[in-house]
Amino acid sequence: MSQHKKVALLLTGNELMSGDTVDSNSSRIAIALGERQIAISKKITVGDDQELLRESLRALCQDAGVVIINGGLGPTEDDLTADVVADVLGERLTDHPKAIKHLEEWCEKRGLELNASNLKQALLPESADIVDNPIGSAVGFAVEIGESLVITTPGVPVELTAMLPEIGQRVAQRVGSGTTYIRRLQTFGIGESTIQELVNERNQDWPEGVVLGFRSGLPQLELKLQVDDEALLEKRDQAEQLLLELIGDHVIGEDSDQLAMALQRVLVEKRMTLTTAESCTGGLIASLITKEAGSSQVFGAGFVTYANTAKQQVLHVSEDTINSHGAVSEGVVRAMLLGALTKANADIGIAVSGVAGPGGGSEDKPVGTVWLAWGTKDNNDAIRLQIPGSRERFQILVAAIGLDLMRRQLLELPPIPHYIKRFVYRSA
Amino acid sequence: MSQHKKVALLLTGNELMSGDTVDSNSSRIAIALGERQIAISKKITVGDDQELLRESLRALCQDAGVVIINGGLGPTEDDLTADVVADVLGERLTDHPKAIKHLEEWCEKRGLELNASNLKQALLPESADIVDNPIGSAVGFAVEIGESLVITTPGVPVELTAMLPEIGQRVAQRVGSGTTYIRRLQTFGIGESTIQELVNERNQDWPEGVVLGFRSGLPQLELKLQVDDEALLEKRDQAEQLLLELIGDHVIGEDSDQLAMALQRVLVEKRMTLTTAESCTGGLIASLITKEAGSSQVFGAGFVTYANTAKQQVLHVSEDTINSHGAVSEGVVRAMLLGALTKANADIGIAVSGVAGPGGGSEDKPVGTVWLAWGTKDNNDAIRLQIPGSRERFQILVAAIGLDLMRRQLLELPPIPHYIKRFVYRSA
Repeated sequence: MSQHKKVALLLTGNELMSGDTVDSNSSRIAIALGERQIAISKKITVGDDQELLRESLRALCQDAGVVIINGGLGPTEDDLTADVVADVLGERLTDHPKAIKHLEEWCEKRGLELNASNLKQALLPESADIVDNPIGSAVGFAVEIGESLVITTPGVPVELTAMLPEIGQRVAQRVGSGTTYIRRLQTFGIGESTIQELVNERNQDWPEGVVLGFRSGLPQLELKLQVDDEALLEKRDQAEQLLLELIGDHVIGEDSDQLAMALQRVLVEKRMTLTTAESCTGGLIASLITKEAGSSQVFGAGFVTYANTAKQQVLHVSEDTINSHGAVSEGVVRAMLLGALTKANADIGIAVSGVAGPGGGSEDKPVGTVWLAWGTKDNNDAIRLQIPGSRERFQILVAAIGLDLMRRQLLELPPIPHYIKRFVYRSA
Repeated sequence: MSQHKKVALLLTGNELMSGDTVDSNSSRIAIALGERQIAISKKITVGDDQELLRESLRALCQDAGVVIINGGLGPTEDDLTADVVADVLGERLTDHPKAIKHLEEWCEKRGLELNASNLKQALLPESADIVDNPIGSAVGFAVEIGESLVITTPGVPVELTAMLPEIGQRVAQRVGSGTTYIRRLQTFGIGESTIQELVNERNQDWPEGVVLGFRSGLPQLELKLQVDDEALLEKRDQAEQLLLELIGDHVIGEDSDQLAMALQRVLVEKRMTLTTAESCTGGLIASLITKEAGSSQVFGAGFVTYANTAKQQVLHVSEDTINSHGAVSEGVVRAMLLGALTKANADIGIAVSGVAGPGGGSEDKPVGTVWLAWGTKDNNDAIRLQIPGSRERFQILVAAIGLDLMRRQLLELPPIPHYIKRFVYRSA
């Protein structure tokens, strides 16, 4: 790539060097530019140090046609960006009329007095061209250093995000751009390598020009289908169809959809309600359901019955059932499910009881053991699983599996999904 | 600082440039070195590109006495680190006997066959000195390039973390080190600027040599008291005492303690149990309580009563109370609290009902309105608050405030804490 087409980042802040802050801003910038098919070739990160900043800025301007500086625009003494840029430019800092106007309006809106520390943010290099900050007090600015366009941006993530459309435009004007067309699918219960293998087996059917990418999270895995030309959108749809054919029952939604939202959608469509009876997940399933706006349409009540007495008194699980099989047993989760369906007067439900750890395990039921029961009053099922890992991972996975089992039943998908195999309990 | 004392990082991976991955590894390295008083002066991040990697490595070796490379040690074609280092060294890659032995043992433990793609990870520069990877297949290695020590490390976070003690030792041997003594306190309900002001007012009492730092999260704020000499540990204790005097009721614990753990501790001490009655937080409070190991000692049952009918049927809130004041009202949360205390047979409880949004607000009770009731059967209170921000932020803050109000009552701290002022509802 020619030097003039290259884009580089210079990130500044002592908190980025000490490890106190994880840099997520450069990811925001990269994603915004990526949508315009603009790649970042290099990032340099240094603390709030005049000399290092000057030296790094000079080096990047030798290297790249555009340099975006992030951070160091605030009102305090360790905010050095304007200083450093003026120095490298050989210009003086002056009170910038547009920046002062921005500050005055910003203070007025908030009923604040404009003070000296704020005014420092309007002290900019003479040739600075203001980049508007729609929500914060510190504007960004653009200057020309040698043959490079240098753009400064604030370190506060929400302010940076608000400025990215204008910054993307300015960078695109300089280095040229295209458009990247990305389709994101959310999946649950299947791994990256399994998907890649299934796709490889159908290699001859995979449309050319469509790039498949992954971003793994817990509990979901995001798939990214990317094409770099509008003419390839049809191919992207073909790739999506192939994926749905191969792993359709694992695809729970698009964009940033969560399992609970996928479940909410099918419940709304079927005009049904759900309930939860949780022991080892302790309210996490209910909490995931109600995190989604609109959940009141499908969810009326949930029960956290952590103690055995609570299982008896709240959900009417019989003392006999608990005594004969223990709290982590098929009988108990089935009774919890029926108790919750009745109490909440709900159509479908999930009940879980398990050993989240770190304590409480036995030879018969080691840490990671869990019984789940799910379904309606007339159509329900139960399964025992063994989930390895920490208490936190156990709770997250059990909650996700619980939501997914209800989704599967409602959509009449295979009731025992592929992923369950990894967790099936095998007695010795 | 002399060049030989400087430490620099070179991070590699296309996923770091595209924004798909946020780099948290450099933060891990910085914190591990920071504990030895070793600072990182510069980071360069580039994609999986031979030329850029060579050029950046050469530049950093000119700059710093130690260069740590992170990433690019895996078995696939885009893992270039060993190649690049060998190139810059002017050495050949050879099958490294120690690395092969490590791979053989690693495969044997897992019952795997050693394959060609694994073996690529043992192809290292001739002068490589192996850095053991206690958990992964890819070892790291150290070489001398000019006057710099170059250490390579894997990009997989858990593997990097496992290797950091040895890496810290090697770096310390080269650049010298000290020890940093850090004490972390977790606080809730007070902001960084308020704490800084309170400390400034007592400037003459603040012991010299103790550095106060902050790391803000939602909902907690972490305080860091740091001294760089064992002889100053007493001063650090003095600073902690002063902080406890100034903001003691906001200090909920140390290290990574969460509010729910602080509450669990006081309940265990008092041999008391708690319960939850949640509408707008939908199970989040119960979930935070049961996320902590040991919660079964203090928590037996919790109730998520999202719908009005559930408030009536599960917690016996009277229809009259709901009809006359609405579901978000003092009467309803007080009745929810008493219903839950009775049903769960618990000593203390929290009940919440509010408008989490984005829908459901009215002129009287806009989005962000919440009523909380907390306490025992004989000693309880209620308050109306107004929490601005998103649905997610609302739920997180209401849950945290709920936990804190119980903690305050049990510890006989001021029942209406400082932070409540920010959220108090004022009728027009």
